[in-house]
Amino acid sequence: MNKSVFYHAGCPVCIGAEQDLLNLLDPQKIEVEIVHLGENKARIGEAEAAGISSVPALKLTNGHVLHLNFGASLEDVKKG
Amino acid sequence: MNKSVFYHAGCPVCIGAEQDLLNLLDPQKIEVEIVHLGENKARIGEAEAAGISSVPALKLTNGHVLHLNFGASLEDVKKG
Repeated sequence: MNKSVFYHAGCPVCIGAEQDLLNLLDPQKIEVEIVHLGENKARIGEAEAAGISSVPALKLTNGHVLHLNFGASLEDVKKG
Repeated sequence: MNKSVFYHAGCPVCIGAEQDLLNLLDPQKIEVEIVHLGENKARIGEAEAAGISSVPALKLTNGHVLHLNFGASLEDVKKG
């Protein structure tokens, strides 16, 4: 099973969405890697290439991206 | 188990988010009622009271709302 990726930046909205959503996912159907873009800026390019414009966001293995409640734009994460 | 509610308005973004997300949820942890606000305008007030400002959105049993990829504002759904 390929991993889906939950991108966040440590913001309160990010943490809230993580707690609300990830625990409700079915571990038999989805495996999620959690990436903190504020601490792992090397992966911002990968997130941009996946079509992510704000965090928190969940990139699925089918390539689709779910942007959750708006926490921060990727532009702000780059600056921060 | 109380039901969570997925509010949508039939827009392409709504349908995409529904297909992407709902199938990945763990049925042992969350039960989801799907409400089409375009066809069921009587429930728009309930959605507003829950803090929903755009669709698609998932209201959880803890009262938190996850707004997913922006499809339409609730104001536009009221007009539509």
